[in-house]
Amino acid sequence: MQRVAVIGVASSTFGDHRTTTTRALGAETVQGAMEDAGISADAIDTAYVGCALTGVLDGQESMVGQIVLRELGITGIPITRVENACSSSACAVREASIAINAGESDIALAFGIEKMLGYSTNRVMDVLTGDGDVALEGNAGLTFPGIFAMAAREHMSLFGTPREAMAAVAEKAHKNAMNNADAHFRRAITREEALRASMVSDPLTIYDCCPISDGAAAVILASEEVANNWQGRVVWLDACVLATGEYEFSDLSRFSATERASKIAYKRSGYLPGDIDVAEVHDCFTIAEIIHSEDLGFFEKGDGGFAVLRGDTQIGGAKPINVSGGLKAKGHPVGATGAGQIVEITKQLRGELKNRQIKDANVGLCHCMGGFFGGDTGSVVVSILSS
Amino acid sequence: MQRVAVIGVASSTFGDHRTTTTRALGAETVQGAMEDAGISADAIDTAYVGCALTGVLDGQESMVGQIVLRELGITGIPITRVENACSSSACAVREASIAINAGESDIALAFGIEKMLGYSTNRVMDVLTGDGDVALEGNAGLTFPGIFAMAAREHMSLFGTPREAMAAVAEKAHKNAMNNADAHFRRAITREEALRASMVSDPLTIYDCCPISDGAAAVILASEEVANNWQGRVVWLDACVLATGEYEFSDLSRFSATERASKIAYKRSGYLPGDIDVAEVHDCFTIAEIIHSEDLGFFEKGDGGFAVLRGDTQIGGAKPINVSGGLKAKGHPVGATGAGQIVEITKQLRGELKNRQIKDANVGLCHCMGGFFGGDTGSVVVSILSS
Repeated sequence: MQRVAVIGVASSTFGDHRTTTTRALGAETVQGAMEDAGISADAIDTAYVGCALTGVLDGQESMVGQIVLRELGITGIPITRVENACSSSACAVREASIAINAGESDIALAFGIEKMLGYSTNRVMDVLTGDGDVALEGNAGLTFPGIFAMAAREHMSLFGTPREAMAAVAEKAHKNAMNNADAHFRRAITREEALRASMVSDPLTIYDCCPISDGAAAVILASEEVANNWQGRVVWLDACVLATGEYEFSDLSRFSATERASKIAYKRSGYLPGDIDVAEVHDCFTIAEIIHSEDLGFFEKGDGGFAVLRGDTQIGGAKPINVSGGLKAKGHPVGATGAGQIVEITKQLRGELKNRQIKDANVGLCHCMGGFFGGDTGSVVVSILSS
Repeated sequence: MQRVAVIGVASSTFGDHRTTTTRALGAETVQGAMEDAGISADAIDTAYVGCALTGVLDGQESMVGQIVLRELGITGIPITRVENACSSSACAVREASIAINAGESDIALAFGIEKMLGYSTNRVMDVLTGDGDVALEGNAGLTFPGIFAMAAREHMSLFGTPREAMAAVAEKAHKNAMNNADAHFRRAITREEALRASMVSDPLTIYDCCPISDGAAAVILASEEVANNWQGRVVWLDACVLATGEYEFSDLSRFSATERASKIAYKRSGYLPGDIDVAEVHDCFTIAEIIHSEDLGFFEKGDGGFAVLRGDTQIGGAKPINVSGGLKAKGHPVGATGAGQIVEITKQLRGELKNRQIKDANVGLCHCMGGFFGGDTGSVVVSILSS
């Protein structure tokens, strides 16, 4: 298997795009990635789009990729939607990298898009239930805040993780998002505010939960052969691995899909957890960042919360996590999140992020999770990139 | 690029599965394909599921593949949903073959599932609008029966195709389905009945339109290396090609996505249209079979309707098409249709179909279309298989 190169990236702002159409938001973002790569539309020979639930909300279930790309005159080529809940566009990037490795494509586009605002919270929560097993979980009353609250309690009980650790994740996310013009929430909060905020699902307050966001993100990938002769900036996608979890409601303090996907990604890339200079981790809830940071091998099991309190995951710490603000504060337009992480880490490795640039960042990791935490529907994509 | 092998197939009946759950219907079908291949669940290292619109209808938008496979204890492996409207599971087969060619998989499962019955026709038609461009087409009042009626009129006007040709497609489909225990409609109709039936969208009567069906179909693919040492029956997938169309409302008598995908598939496989012994063609409407049979190179442009009237597409004719009954009479559970075509042609090439077996069938073709006919959202997968 060869490495695949990232030759162009772009992201919309994550936040409120109610006044924009899906096609306009998507086309503008894809256009941005083409400009970033310095290519025209006819250079793209294959496209994958990640989109999770917009179709359930607005009725445009199919053809989102084709509709966005017809705006740019990109027709004729294979265009495929990939859907794996919150990891949809991470999976789109993966399929694009597989197509390149199979010799099906030289230059492939992967993008994600989601428009979730403009509906009642109840309606969106109802649709989000469809990211887990509706019959066995959702219909039994288990919501995403519910399952992550259970995971938080398990982690607190087993390892003594203090609630302050989760509040510290929220504080960091909001602080980092202050330096990200594309983030949904650009407002600092204190740890105390997070702890005192409205309770959603004990022990998770409103500040422990990521928001409902609109957004799009696009990545252009090229084969190693194309990239070796490329005039522009190249970042290498050394591994892009998908794994599904096991049924593990008996122990919610770990997530096997993250362990499995990251182990394979480390092996394929040749990098170890200690080599990762910067990471975007799927912090749909603050406790998720803590648990996944352990399962990714960044910290010993049970030490994730204390690592946050030590400042290890801050900019300037040993293992900066979610420098973008993460899902928590950058926002979580479900189907766009995975591609958005690749955009962020690519820019980090190109050294372009100015006020949130990690010094000498050479190796980065993206972790994106779809489906139910605890259930064997949970699907994780781990990507490792290097400059 | 290497050939990929089909080592196991199974299909549910297409029809009414309202009393079965999606997970049970899917698991039973996948189990059938594993038994057909003679493998156990742990042999499968990768899975793709094609499912188009069930999630919009029942709320289980994501995780359909994971939920079906958890029933069989298949967890941990990469499981990805692929959605391209009516070509969803044809695209799932394609992604599985690409994963094998990329070295990501040795034995991959691709299956399709759809449950569409139990809702009002209005509701299903509304959801089906989301297989085209809702804003530009659906909201303008253009339905699938509408666009195919326009195509029929164009074809009749340009080439003198008689309405009887479409009725003959319907007659043949129903006749063939009489020999298929898995078909939705197992009742013969005459050409005259088809012509006199209730008008849906002039000139298309109810018998020119495929039904709303439930169903599942599963295909197990293996690498050439695995297949070369395989003890069981092997059919080769010589090409599996996806192409998107061009904007072509100015001439609805042809469909560029079919032309493009089939040209690439013929080139890759080394077979020509004349080499194809039997074909499953996406006959969502009778006129679609006629137009696509021309664009696939089976007949000269404009001769497709007359070819049907000559009996060329019958069992025993020069180019048997939709021996299964096709979408028209076998049924069209949207996301399962593409995989179902692969199941049918695999069985033909293995010589197992008894009362609908084509003698000496060595090369077969599957043609599956998703999205709007006439628009550049239309996506076609052409697969060529050989024994």
